[in-house]
Amino acid sequence: MIAVLRIGHRIDRDKRVTTHVALVARAFGADTVFITTKDDKIKKNLLSVCKRFGGNFQVETGVEPKKIIKSWDGIIVHLTMYGENLEKAIQQIDPGRNILIIVGSEKVPPYFYEVADINVSVGNQPHSEVAALALFLDRFTKGKWGKKVFHGNIEIIPCVKGKKVRSKESV
Amino acid sequence: MIAVLRIGHRIDRDKRVTTHVALVARAFGADTVFITTKDDKIKKNLLSVCKRFGGNFQVETGVEPKKIIKSWDGIIVHLTMYGENLEKAIQQIDPGRNILIIVGSEKVPPYFYEVADINVSVGNQPHSEVAALALFLDRFTKGKWGKKVFHGNIEIIPCVKGKKVRSKESV
Repeated sequence: MIAVLRIGHRIDRDKRVTTHVALVARAFGADTVFITTKDDKIKKNLLSVCKRFGGNFQVETGVEPKKIIKSWDGIIVHLTMYGENLEKAIQQIDPGRNILIIVGSEKVPPYFYEVADINVSVGNQPHSEVAALALFLDRFTKGKWGKKVFHGNIEIIPCVKGKKVRSKESV
Repeated sequence: MIAVLRIGHRIDRDKRVTTHVALVARAFGADTVFITTKDDKIKKNLLSVCKRFGGNFQVETGVEPKKIIKSWDGIIVHLTMYGENLEKAIQQIDPGRNILIIVGSEKVPPYFYEVADINVSVGNQPHSEVAALALFLDRFTKGKWGKKVFHGNIEIIPCVKGKKVRSKESV
């Protein structure tokens, strides 16, 4: 199981970035996102995407991060620009175990650095937790997202120009 | 040369996501970001990161997208969930030419789909233009970002726990 724990979400300020974090989690192979702040609106929006585009992605908001962490049966990774080099880190993570990936926003309390089995950086430059999560999941799953089928009501067909959509909703 | 053209930026609503797009562009190997909307604040923030963390990344805001596109000497790629499969698309793009990567926000006018040499999707699921740009640059540059050195005043040293920072600023 792959779960993402989004900490420090501020309802108004972070709604778009947290939505991106959650959608990236879903698209790149995670099973669940936990968002520490209670936010029914973001949950509703995310579940609406899941319903239309398929898959079994779970969304929980208003969770107590320490409770999730303490009861976690598996590896805990924290994504941060201060962490271990991505490629080196991946070699140290057993892909057979459950993994909880902590994704912060601007200021992350030291507790999360300490409690993580490994802090992982996707490059040591400032960029984006959204990109960091996508790259981490890409490397951790060896690019499996590229072949994942979601069996949704809406299916996008790749094309060089324009839009091709198969939709069961309009039938 | 690798340039990113961020279209449809709304100053208040998109400031965080556009900042992520620009920082990802810088961290993953682009030379320039063009942001169509004039936004001095975002430019100032981005240039402050560039100054501290190094590199020669350029930021321009308030550009006319059609002008950039018409005068572009190289390939034009548009990232969209409706586009061609990433791996297939990469094979069609000559890495020796300049590349302009168009990154939209919510609604992208048909013009950009049409004017692009190729529309490229990073998975055909809804997720994030930030993640799409990171993955595209990762594949296009064959992961070169992992070895890029920025020679900044601030340098982060990878570590499994805690933070290690070399700073010329505090000297």
